[in-house]
Amino acid sequence: MSIRTLLPAAVLLSLAVPALATPKPEDAIKYRQGVYEAIKWNFGTLAAMTKGEVPYNKEEAVHRAELLTVLAKMPLEGFAPGTDKGAKTAAKAKIWQDRAKFENGFKQLQAETAKLADAAKSGDAAALKAQVGATGKTCKACHDAFREE
Amino acid sequence: MSIRTLLPAAVLLSLAVPALATPKPEDAIKYRQGVYEAIKWNFGTLAAMTKGEVPYNKEEAVHRAELLTVLAKMPLEGFAPGTDKGAKTAAKAKIWQDRAKFENGFKQLQAETAKLADAAKSGDAAALKAQVGATGKTCKACHDAFREE
Repeated sequence: MSIRTLLPAAVLLSLAVPALATPKPEDAIKYRQGVYEAIKWNFGTLAAMTKGEVPYNKEEAVHRAELLTVLAKMPLEGFAPGTDKGAKTAAKAKIWQDRAKFENGFKQLQAETAKLADAAKSGDAAALKAQVGATGKTCKACHDAFREE
Repeated sequence: MSIRTLLPAAVLLSLAVPALATPKPEDAIKYRQGVYEAIKWNFGTLAAMTKGEVPYNKEEAVHRAELLTVLAKMPLEGFAPGTDKGAKTAAKAKIWQDRAKFENGFKQLQAETAKLADAAKSGDAAALKAQVGATGKTCKACHDAFREE
């Protein structure tokens, strides 16, 4: 039994700090850029399917969309304060200045990718295509606001 | 109802080709490198916890380990034939020459990350530490064999 199991809940809560040590800005920048590459790859595969560049395949669509729901939750922690520089980055200063809007962008992305998974599971290729479009618009809105050209 | 739902299973199986259009080597290289950044970030966070650099936190450990089980399944598709060049890469030619061994490395990584999630869920910090070590060895074995210094 660890010492933690002996502590009352209120104390445990106060100990439940984020476990991240302060990361080096360079590492955080590479991390978030890496996640975006993985998002791009999976979203691109799904978009290729809805554009008819590759055959529609429900199982594959569900796989891609479910990965995207996981990946959509990942970049935000890579934008901690102080990670505006330290490696080559297209992140605008506005990310840290208009934080509520930036974080809301991720909430929207998470909502859209959840809908994407639903559309993929429905087996309705037209619904999937529509939701790929809606998700892409959410990506673009955030890029337009917070990413340098 | 799509045409696909009208087809018998045997025909569907033959249609169940991978939905990936042939990716540009550059995109595949960036994809797999991106996934490795995400693996490094999450594994590093978990390792920092088992080294005592950040407080042990079961919920956080489970979150990281579960992400790693998903991420461990992702890089392989980025090593398609023809992606040995096209962007800066540390991938050795051996990846495509000794494919069975390379793919077996991913099977091992997936097995180790599954054990990592189990260890995290157990709430046993010592078990987690041991399994972080075992997982790290699996990473290193593959890097030693297939990644340029």
